[in-house]
Amino acid sequence: MTSTAYLATDESRTTRKRQAIVEAATAVFLRNGYLGTSMDEIAALATVSKQTVYKQFADKEQLFSDVILRIVHQVDEETQAAVLALGETDDLERDLGQLARRFLGSLREPRVLQLRRLIIGEAGRFPALGRTYWREGFERALATLAAGFQRLVDRGLLRLDDPLFAAQHFAGLVLWIPMNQVMFNGGESVTDDQLERAADAGVRAFLAAYSTRDI
Amino acid sequence: MTSTAYLATDESRTTRKRQAIVEAATAVFLRNGYLGTSMDEIAALATVSKQTVYKQFADKEQLFSDVILRIVHQVDEETQAAVLALGETDDLERDLGQLARRFLGSLREPRVLQLRRLIIGEAGRFPALGRTYWREGFERALATLAAGFQRLVDRGLLRLDDPLFAAQHFAGLVLWIPMNQVMFNGGESVTDDQLERAADAGVRAFLAAYSTRDI
Repeated sequence: MTSTAYLATDESRTTRKRQAIVEAATAVFLRNGYLGTSMDEIAALATVSKQTVYKQFADKEQLFSDVILRIVHQVDEETQAAVLALGETDDLERDLGQLARRFLGSLREPRVLQLRRLIIGEAGRFPALGRTYWREGFERALATLAAGFQRLVDRGLLRLDDPLFAAQHFAGLVLWIPMNQVMFNGGESVTDDQLERAADAGVRAFLAAYSTRDI
Repeated sequence: MTSTAYLATDESRTTRKRQAIVEAATAVFLRNGYLGTSMDEIAALATVSKQTVYKQFADKEQLFSDVILRIVHQVDEETQAAVLALGETDDLERDLGQLARRFLGSLREPRVLQLRRLIIGEAGRFPALGRTYWREGFERALATLAAGFQRLVDRGLLRLDDPLFAAQHFAGLVLWIPMNQVMFNGGESVTDDQLERAADAGVRAFLAAYSTRDI
């Protein structure tokens, strides 16, 4: 084995350990909250030493920030792909409905909900965490959606002055009530049928406000 | 003094003490969170004995529930009055704008924001608290708003099938982004100018979707 091969093996071991730490941290943070989580517990669950954790992450806040970013970036990639497809739609109402269902689908993911609750609950004590989630999660998703709507304006399907407001309105029409309902009552409080109706009603109102065609 | 007068004095003393306890509890819960608050601390701040607290409130959860309800009912009374006035409007766009500004104004009330964060953060551990806030806060406000919109349908100013969805949509159009922004970034992250523009854009989209007139 050459020294380069050794290096590669070291690197992949480091990557594997890093991933194990982030996965363990995700589980422990979501179960116990930010204050209730210790680096010891994370190290134990990841079956690495505490020194290894600190070699990769300066402190608990940085590790939590990584946990947030990992989940947020997964959601973001899915949103990007969905909005890109929407821009080329040949059935606007149907494909807006699919996008609405995708947004509402996140309410069925306990990890996303727990994370959201955790960050809101801790945002007073740890403002940097909330700001990261806002910037990497909300602002990126809105910018992506706004670019998709601009493409639909260029294709003559939507009529609007401000794509960013239209993106905010689409999200608000679809998500406001179901998101609050699960935040305050838990994910099991919303039925699939409620989500279907929220998607359809939200899309209808959006098209009534912004479509170039009468619906 | 007759025995009835004694009784009245006792009653008003009890009411006063109860109010002092609820006010102290509000301050301590909002500062320290639910888990970080003890009945001892509340009793000390209210300058009553712990026995007096327990005579009025069975446990911490019931006291917290009272704190929630007091804030929620204050907001509710204001909403009722505003929506009643909206139903008789002679300038729909202006008065919807006023209502939107009133909703957005709650984002300038630290108590309301802290309470909301606290309940969302604790909803996993204490589902009853979240449900109370949802039922007494959200559902009542939506029902009130839906009744106001139905009055506007009857007067020929709005066209809609489902007043409850229209109420959800009005709230979502106006509140989705500013509310999330302050939940994740704090109340000082939103400027007055942003709130003004959110109100105007939300009302315009709502009227484009639901008004009987072209705007």
